Amino acid sequence: MKRLEDKILKDGKIGEGNVLKVDSFVNHQIDVNFMCEVGREFYRLFQNEKIDKILTIEASGIGIACLTAQYFHVPVLFAKKTQTCNIFGDVYRSKVESFTHQKTYDIIVSKSFLHPGDRVLIIDDFLAKGNALLGLLDLIHAAGARAVGAGIVIEKAFQDGGKRVRDTGLRVESLARIKSMSVENGITFM
Amino acid sequence: MKRLEDKILKDGKIGEGNVLKVDSFVNHQIDVNFMCEVGREFYRLFQNEKIDKILTIEASGIGIACLTAQYFHVPVLFAKKTQTCNIFGDVYRSKVESFTHQKTYDIIVSKSFLHPGDRVLIIDDFLAKGNALLGLLDLIHAAGARAVGAGIVIEKAFQDGGKRVRDTGLRVESLARIKSMSVENGITFM
Repeated sequence: MKRLEDKILKDGKIGEGNVLKVDSFVNHQIDVNFMCEVGREFYRLFQNEKIDKILTIEASGIGIACLTAQYFHVPVLFAKKTQTCNIFGDVYRSKVESFTHQKTYDIIVSKSFLHPGDRVLIIDDFLAKGNALLGLLDLIHAAGARAVGAGIVIEKAFQDGGKRVRDTGLRVESLARIKSMSVENGITFM
Repeated sequence: MKRLEDKILKDGKIGEGNVLKVDSFVNHQIDVNFMCEVGREFYRLFQNEKIDKILTIEASGIGIACLTAQYFHVPVLFAKKTQTCNIFGDVYRSKVESFTHQKTYDIIVSKSFLHPGDRVLIIDDFLAKGNALLGLLDLIHAAGARAVGAGIVIEKAFQDGGKRVRDTGLRVESLARIKSMSVENGITFM
């Protein structure tokens, strides 16, 4: 998505530890007008799939997932990162190792909202090592539901997550695929 | 908002400790079609205010804030609950005591995204004791920005948060105001 690549070049910054900082429009401040365009692009890509539900993970996936879901007219379910006292009853649970936060955490969804046969589209802001996405796939499979694809805003294609996830057979559509990035040489796309 | 009250009566559940469980459409699964209606209602209420930005708090405020912001054509900024390594630079910080999670946490926003003179609308899913809202007001005031109002989906009007926040002079618009709730007698509205 050319407009997204241009926006990453214009507003993205590369921080220490090779972190791509897009907190001016993706994951702290959200450029909602622009993310509606992103949502429409996901709709264009997946409109021919029957989709019952969009699954994402808190926190930064939620806004993009909601702005996308309105075009599909389906609900969003977001996996939570710790068990809190306002989720009752049984949950599906998986473990995710976070590259950004350098720790391992549990993700959970209530069994009430993922059912056998549900056709689920995953939406998330980043794909790097693929751990979050593989954790979400775990939850979908545990429920006997079916993942029909994943829509990713930014894929760090120089990391192995994309391969790991595509190797499971999942259709992954990343709107910007970063080939390389460094403070010295900037950002290039696939 | 009558449609919201009806939905709370139909889909809400009261759990132990007087927790209102609306995780089927508000804060775990999100009924995006319905939350677009909620967003349009916030737009109707605040459309005559000049608004530069919508501020919310992760995680469950984000979806509602984004679906609302698209009608105002403004960005969303969400306060984060812990400092993570992909926010650089200076932040505004406040402390919030959580009723639901029974702990105190820091909320932060990057100084890059709240500026003196910004006119900010706060959007959140719940108003109970008012701590989250007062914490967000702290951040806005620390930036020299101005809070023009708060749009709340569900106010527990039997708790004192609404009074505490309105006593600061802030205009608070809650779409459903719960007068009482109990497992025995169900939910009544103001």
